[in-house]
Amino acid sequence: MRRQTSIPDLITGILNGNRLALSRAISHVEDEQISTRSLLQGIYRHTGRAHLIGVTGAPGTGKSTLVTQLARSYRQQGQSVAVLAVDPTSPFTGGALLGDRVRMNQLSGDAGVFIRSMATRGHLGGVAAATADVLLLLDAAGFERIIVETVGVGQAEVEIASMAHTTVVVEAPGLGDEVQAIKAGVLEIADIFVVNKADRPGTERTISALEMMLEQKHGGERTLRHHGQVMIVTLPDPVPETNSWQIPVLKSVATAGEGISTLHDAIEKHHTWLHNSGMLAIREEARIVHTLEALIHTELNRRLRIAVPATMVATLVTAVRKRTIDPHEAAARMIETISNSNI
Amino acid sequence: MRRQTSIPDLITGILNGNRLALSRAISHVEDEQISTRSLLQGIYRHTGRAHLIGVTGAPGTGKSTLVTQLARSYRQQGQSVAVLAVDPTSPFTGGALLGDRVRMNQLSGDAGVFIRSMATRGHLGGVAAATADVLLLLDAAGFERIIVETVGVGQAEVEIASMAHTTVVVEAPGLGDEVQAIKAGVLEIADIFVVNKADRPGTERTISALEMMLEQKHGGERTLRHHGQVMIVTLPDPVPETNSWQIPVLKSVATAGEGISTLHDAIEKHHTWLHNSGMLAIREEARIVHTLEALIHTELNRRLRIAVPATMVATLVTAVRKRTIDPHEAAARMIETISNSNI
Repeated sequence: MRRQTSIPDLITGILNGNRLALSRAISHVEDEQISTRSLLQGIYRHTGRAHLIGVTGAPGTGKSTLVTQLARSYRQQGQSVAVLAVDPTSPFTGGALLGDRVRMNQLSGDAGVFIRSMATRGHLGGVAAATADVLLLLDAAGFERIIVETVGVGQAEVEIASMAHTTVVVEAPGLGDEVQAIKAGVLEIADIFVVNKADRPGTERTISALEMMLEQKHGGERTLRHHGQVMIVTLPDPVPETNSWQIPVLKSVATAGEGISTLHDAIEKHHTWLHNSGMLAIREEARIVHTLEALIHTELNRRLRIAVPATMVATLVTAVRKRTIDPHEAAARMIETISNSNI
Repeated sequence: MRRQTSIPDLITGILNGNRLALSRAISHVEDEQISTRSLLQGIYRHTGRAHLIGVTGAPGTGKSTLVTQLARSYRQQGQSVAVLAVDPTSPFTGGALLGDRVRMNQLSGDAGVFIRSMATRGHLGGVAAATADVLLLLDAAGFERIIVETVGVGQAEVEIASMAHTTVVVEAPGLGDEVQAIKAGVLEIADIFVVNKADRPGTERTISALEMMLEQKHGGERTLRHHGQVMIVTLPDPVPETNSWQIPVLKSVATAGEGISTLHDAIEKHHTWLHNSGMLAIREEARIVHTLEALIHTELNRRLRIAVPATMVATLVTAVRKRTIDPHEAAARMIETISNSNI
């Protein structure tokens, strides 16, 4: 096979289901190559067919095993599936790649599965933006189900998981404080809760705690969270409560394959509900707003770097440190420079 | 006492050590009142005297108790101290205020202590920007030591803790995976590690794990991390290694008051080192760069909201959802509108 270096070749390759082209395109996004934009523009109109499933939860909940089992379950029903594991805090691919290999062994030799880890720390456009771009590539490549798995429970993880159509939050009994779920804001993004490792003591207590939290949060519809700070539009109101989604709290023992088919069914049921309720369009638009904010932000930053000379920044920063001028004054001067530069 | 409503009155009040004025000013920042800017401009030249101490770590490490003990230790040595507890994920003040009351009981009736929790979720300028503003107010109010305590181990918490001059990372034995410290990126921001709850089994193992990680990270100087995405300047190189800070790994049992004086001394030693090595100016400038980025970002967002009509955004978002145009094209059109609006 010859090397595919040109963007048109890459695009054709992705749309034809060529794995090597897809992998190379993902690397383009990771490495922030300038060709990424034309690549994404080329594939964009072929996207929008995949069902995106976000899986998040604290370390130690057994997320990875659950995701692997879920992918296998999709394969058994004949659906193609891609798994994207994102660790927003890791600058290394070493560990992640090892994890990939373990999983590959379990799902190897199957052309309907694609597994990839992303190392995105330090990505200029942000982890979420990079993840969104890779999801578009996987979507264009024709995968029917795409699982985005995030490691950890920080803000970035919540942001990534909430980009999906259906967000699954994994809990486990005995991890200490059940209230962690609220702390990290995952309660607001969950469409489905799964208490994994449900053969351990404390399972029922964890389930009760989650159900109690869900009752307190009247309604049942997830909040359209917005971490982007631009907030260029007010999003439409969610659907009326009469048509709302009741967030289920499921159980699983992923290592034994228990509870996987129930989870699978709940995800598909949510998928159907999204289509029938009109929520799919609302969530898609929320996601697009988020993407646009990130793109605009990146572009304005680029202009700022070009317009304001480094010497000017250094002088202003030193003046602020010496309390000669205040930060607002310094910021105003830089903005004035951008406005005058007409870039 | 008459109500202080005017900004000049608030400024005078803060500089004179009036608690009510300080509390009201902090509420101005929390509520994003437009008067915040002139307030901060008015106090800015009176800032830069406090030593800022960041304390972060996972839930369950006993951070709050440690911080309370540390505050008491400063009071015993006659230094005035403010404690700012920031929970980037909490939109509620209820729980935080309860915590304040418990602490207040332990340090009550002392005019040299000020304790405040901040609820900052959803703050337009970001949690870190709001925290930075409140730190300026506390600094202007004359507190010699300001402890910023963050709850959790996410990116926002790391960002806030790293705004301090001296960052203390709290660990505890038996919280599971020691590697969590690296995952969350706290290794890179720590000036001092404290293993709290050091009367529990596994303490030595946690200490060894931390020391091993520190050895692998050759040198010893903390990285000047930069979560801001503008990155308008390249920061100066850190001081040569011969003059570098060796990150200590300390032990404490905060509930019993053990290890507090050692921690206190280590923080003061770091303070002295910052001054003598020239690192203080470097860190201050890094912090100022961060602040300027946040201010510029907020202002550009404001202009974006004014320049681009909501109807235009809605039309573009729907077009992107229907795959008529791609996100980059939509973003480009919005940016063009800002450029042409000459705001």
